[in-house]
Amino acid sequence: MVVVMHHGASDAEIDQVCDSIRKRGLEPLLMPGNTMAIGIPSSIPPDVREPLGQILQILPGVDSVTHVSRSYKLASREFHPADTIVDVGGVRFGQPNVTVIAGPCSIEGYDQLKATAETVQRAGATVLRGGAFKPRTSPYSFQGLAEEGLRIMQQVGKETGIRTISEVMSPDMVETVAKHVDILQIGARSMQNFPLLIEAGKSGHPAMLKRGPGATVDEFLLAAEYLLANGNQNVILCERGVHPLDRTYTRNTLDLAAVPVLKEYSHLPVVVDPSHGTGKAKYVPAMCYAAIAAGADGIMVEVHPDPRESLSDAAQALTPALFEQMMEKLRGFVASAGRSLSRIEARA
Amino acid sequence: MVVVMHHGASDAEIDQVCDSIRKRGLEPLLMPGNTMAIGIPSSIPPDVREPLGQILQILPGVDSVTHVSRSYKLASREFHPADTIVDVGGVRFGQPNVTVIAGPCSIEGYDQLKATAETVQRAGATVLRGGAFKPRTSPYSFQGLAEEGLRIMQQVGKETGIRTISEVMSPDMVETVAKHVDILQIGARSMQNFPLLIEAGKSGHPAMLKRGPGATVDEFLLAAEYLLANGNQNVILCERGVHPLDRTYTRNTLDLAAVPVLKEYSHLPVVVDPSHGTGKAKYVPAMCYAAIAAGADGIMVEVHPDPRESLSDAAQALTPALFEQMMEKLRGFVASAGRSLSRIEARA
Amino acid sequence: MVVVMHHGASDAEIDQVCDSIRKRGLEPLLMPGNTMAIGIPSSIPPDVREPLGQILQILPGVDSVTHVSRSYKLASREFHPADTIVDVGGVRFGQPNVTVIAGPCSIEGYDQLKATAETVQRAGATVLRGGAFKPRTSPYSFQGLAEEGLRIMQQVGKETGIRTISEVMSPDMVETVAKHVDILQIGARSMQNFPLLIEAGKSGHPAMLKRGPGATVDEFLLAAEYLLANGNQNVILCERGVHPLDRTYTRNTLDLAAVPVLKEYSHLPVVVDPSHGTGKAKYVPAMCYAAIAAGADGIMVEVHPDPRESLSDAAQALTPALFEQMMEKLRGFVASAGRSLSRIEARA
Amino acid sequence: MVVVMHHGASDAEIDQVCDSIRKRGLEPLLMPGNTMAIGIPSSIPPDVREPLGQILQILPGVDSVTHVSRSYKLASREFHPADTIVDVGGVRFGQPNVTVIAGPCSIEGYDQLKATAETVQRAGATVLRGGAFKPRTSPYSFQGLAEEGLRIMQQVGKETGIRTISEVMSPDMVETVAKHVDILQIGARSMQNFPLLIEAGKSGHPAMLKRGPGATVDEFLLAAEYLLANGNQNVILCERGVHPLDRTYTRNTLDLAAVPVLKEYSHLPVVVDPSHGTGKAKYVPAMCYAAIAAGADGIMVEVHPDPRESLSDAAQALTPALFEQMMEKLRGFVASAGRSLSRIEARA
Repeated sequence: MVVVMHHGASDAEIDQVCDSIRKRGLEPLLMPGNTMAIGIPSSIPPDVREPLGQILQILPGVDSVTHVSRSYKLASREFHPADTIVDVGGVRFGQPNVTVIAGPCSIEGYDQLKATAETVQRAGATVLRGGAFKPRTSPYSFQGLAEEGLRIMQQVGKETGIRTISEVMSPDMVETVAKHVDILQIGARSMQNFPLLIEAGKSGHPAMLKRGPGATVDEFLLAAEYLLANGNQNVILCERGVHPLDRTYTRNTLDLAAVPVLKEYSHLPVVVDPSHGTGKAKYVPAMCYAAIAAGADGIMVEVHPDPRESLSDAAQALTPALFEQMMEKLRGFVASAGRSLSRIEARA
Repeated sequence: MVVVMHHGASDAEIDQVCDSIRKRGLEPLLMPGNTMAIGIPSSIPPDVREPLGQILQILPGVDSVTHVSRSYKLASREFHPADTIVDVGGVRFGQPNVTVIAGPCSIEGYDQLKATAETVQRAGATVLRGGAFKPRTSPYSFQGLAEEGLRIMQQVGKETGIRTISEVMSPDMVETVAKHVDILQIGARSMQNFPLLIEAGKSGHPAMLKRGPGATVDEFLLAAEYLLANGNQNVILCERGVHPLDRTYTRNTLDLAAVPVLKEYSHLPVVVDPSHGTGKAKYVPAMCYAAIAAGADGIMVEVHPDPRESLSDAAQALTPALFEQMMEKLRGFVASAGRSLSRIEARA
Repeated sequence: MVVVMHHGASDAEIDQVCDSIRKRGLEPLLMPGNTMAIGIPSSIPPDVREPLGQILQILPGVDSVTHVSRSYKLASREFHPADTIVDVGGVRFGQPNVTVIAGPCSIEGYDQLKATAETVQRAGATVLRGGAFKPRTSPYSFQGLAEEGLRIMQQVGKETGIRTISEVMSPDMVETVAKHVDILQIGARSMQNFPLLIEAGKSGHPAMLKRGPGATVDEFLLAAEYLLANGNQNVILCERGVHPLDRTYTRNTLDLAAVPVLKEYSHLPVVVDPSHGTGKAKYVPAMCYAAIAAGADGIMVEVHPDPRESLSDAAQALTPALFEQMMEKLRGFVASAGRSLSRIEARA
Repeated sequence: MVVVMHHGASDAEIDQVCDSIRKRGLEPLLMPGNTMAIGIPSSIPPDVREPLGQILQILPGVDSVTHVSRSYKLASREFHPADTIVDVGGVRFGQPNVTVIAGPCSIEGYDQLKATAETVQRAGATVLRGGAFKPRTSPYSFQGLAEEGLRIMQQVGKETGIRTISEVMSPDMVETVAKHVDILQIGARSMQNFPLLIEAGKSGHPAMLKRGPGATVDEFLLAAEYLLANGNQNVILCERGVHPLDRTYTRNTLDLAAVPVLKEYSHLPVVVDPSHGTGKAKYVPAMCYAAIAAGADGIMVEVHPDPRESLSDAAQALTPALFEQMMEKLRGFVASAGRSLSRIEARA
């Protein structure tokens, strides 16, 4: 931590800052330029360090306080240098695999989901997505089939062998969702739903955490830290776009540089969701290729048997034909990236 | 809704768009410039209109689809032209009152809360804030006293007569929090926690909804719509800052123009929280004055008996002395705005 | 400056960082937590410090480099503790004055400008705004009357006594614009037009620098630094809104907290432009009051004799009647802020 | 254009809106939901249409005005359906070429530039970049070698055969820069420097326009429109990152989805600059691969013979060795994209 004093700070003000630091067992170093460096040994817990930073800011004579150390730990590569491979019933997320998750925005019925599962599996996807509980901006939009949707997904998973993912929106539903699907999805709007993160953490069930549209990388990794700190090692990160400059052409701005950033600072696998990241089906293939080229461990894509009849997010769903074309071309990029598409192995 | 066709769109493409529109009982009007206007009578429910917009986007030959009607209804001034006055146990939010909510970030104990309540009440605040369940970015930060905190707040409320507000973070805690405090706070990070909004809506308990840092005004009012549509008429809006360009000087960008915007398009009272909006105690007084000048119905301010000993958000808490000075000067701005500070009347 | 090494950085890597620092005559301090603090004496010029920060980032083993000192100097309050009062031909910007600048977006002709000048002066404005060279997003929009506009403005200034401001868009026009008007306006889109800043700096003519819509406070003050470092002490800052989350209701997000931030870190007067800051006339009065309450030294407001006939920015111009009403109510807020409207004194 | 009236708008208000529209020779269509659609025949020039939109917004009873047509024309694919291929002295930008531009941030001297040119050319680059006039945020940073730099670049171009690009910052320097280099670079901070765009347009010299960090796609294409409307058909677009959520890990957020968006709506070639887009050399290779996969027509990369001795932007420059490795791997992605690296053909 570094404390910069105002140019004209008095000796008494400097002393008060030093005292506040020493009171917490730390030692300030006074440097040229009225700057005070405070070494924080890693033995000092974050719950001492963080309030100290806040308190120093309000002492008289203080110009600014800058934290220089990362505040996540279990999610960091320093703590866990090797890549984490998350095994989801025999489908692996992490080097050298590229795992493709595909399926409709919402589960609308057995026939729709079964047809989609067969299509996407044939084209190379190993995980089926589909929402049963839907977070909708408007209370008047289709809210999903709820538990009935989960049962359909479980059945389709059994019949086809494809692995499954569906969103959980509140802590009391974690157990139910985990019973029916292979991966819990924590949606972008729930990224800082801390009671939900804690329950999903305790469940130990594989969980994919989507980045909130306004979340910095640090906030994203601290949300992952909630899952890890509550005992869940099976965490997959998902970049899905941040707030756009405007929404004329895309719904979000897909932040693909987050892929190499997350791979450098964290050991967790990283998936990219270009469907939400752009909000327009026509831009999804280009962004899938780009995600793989950027080093992503997987992609998540919305596919609907007939988007024109879709109950939600029609504009961002690929048709089966377009998904197949995309997967065809994707294989070249996967190979250029020195990787291969994941397969479904037998469940452990 | 307006559909713009690509310049070279074929007649067949135009026909297909028209057919899709007519299939939903609506009538397209073809205008010069290959633009198709679709009048949406208010009798057409949003759950027909919204998917239609998505579906039209993916038809061949379509350039863009623009929604021109607002998607919130109960929250809109069109639906409810007169200002809503929310009465919270005798304290009113709405014209001509300016209601001041003040108190610590977190409830740390009885003595801290009681001392703060007495201070802020003496200076003109009529509602006491204080977190019992704390949404913290890091799992290692102080997480609050939970139900013990709520009991302390209820006791302090009884002893001093001040009304109370505290945050609720998950749907299963709505009933508990509502039992102990006068106003449920839905935090910024929970603005789109839809299961929570639904429960808080059903409770009918006065609720203050904070704007998410990345939420547009429409998304904010649609979140309020969840509360209203589930039966809660006692909704207070709170602007607390949006994502900043950078965080060197402030933690968020307080969007004060949202005050007149919200007052124009909605009938709900609007409170401003400059403590979170800036994240720095030193900027809070100026932003409180500005909020009142901008037309806010109230302000929410963090005050701590000794910020240097605060367990959370020390940097943004005013000392009792600074709060009193601020309230002194605030009275002039309240008068210039043609308003007066609210008082605590007997509970109905 | 603080350099944080990666957790597993080797001694050789740490040594290389230390060597690079020492090579520039600075001394690194190694602290617990693999952090290296580098005190930068104020005698070290920015052109040594800044490249050093860049270079350290790419050395092996380095996690992050954080600058903790401010990079502006002449614009800083540390360098110049007292408020700067800019005197523009007898009109003062700075405590205790509140200076009101008003006028049309574009100068459209003598009659339009003269009528506006008389109206706004009568209501309390002391500076007349009006664009002769217009920066327009589209090449097809009205581009202004150019030098003819400047001549009209000079004439109206002479006839009414009001002081004048108009925008200059390129370095070769600085002299011409300075000859005709009292204040050079550097527009938001020119905030980092460095050749223009250098010329406007050399001219010494009073200059109002508008904040770019994406500019951080540091970038804004560094742009002011260009003016100051080239010899111009008569610099006025203008906050006019930053990029909005969306443009449905306002064109920009007016960042009023920038007012107290700028007043703390800089000695220069700060004006707020709610016309561009919101883009909607109906929100301008509320934001003018809020700007004054926030501590601004002035406001800049678009007024047009008949906005329905305006050639540019009609949506954000007040009518004369609305401007008068606004000024009436503004006086209360000016008084509550302990200030008074500036007057036109004789030219020095 | 669509005008939505407030719910309770009176007949007189609706009539006034209709009259304003008819006054400009246009015909309003009143639709259900109090919405008025105005078809704008393409024969109506933008300078009639745009002020009309502004004026309608301020009429009583109007809720909102929405433009649905694009405001750029020459830059649009509707106007020019086929891809534009820009030929720069025998190096082509546009399908099926991928053109690599590489070189130092600043030209520091003959030896530095010559060595870099040889390195990057050997590895596959066909255009050499290097700044002579440098836009620097701080007045105290290295400002470039000016015309001396241009002469060095011209000489190196002659000696090696590589084509050249350098930035021009003010309208009066367009001729000089065009004399020395093959492509004029209009920097991100100059994207809306309209006098500069007009001069660069008139010159007809190949020009690469960088997207401003806060510019929407429409603003970007309107800036290109200035070049085209002033007679320059040789325009190359460059995406270089937009304002980031925070700057902890990257300097900007590279908006790669802008590539397919720009390719859909415009016929101009699109280059991506991951060096500025990320600000960190270590993320540049991943973003180069992703840019190609996203469909870019080229990349622009900073390379310095020894970044540790660089006078500017050291943190984002690749070493020659890293550039060579990157180019090696890039070839795979270029092939997967169905393209090939451009070559230097004889000048026409």
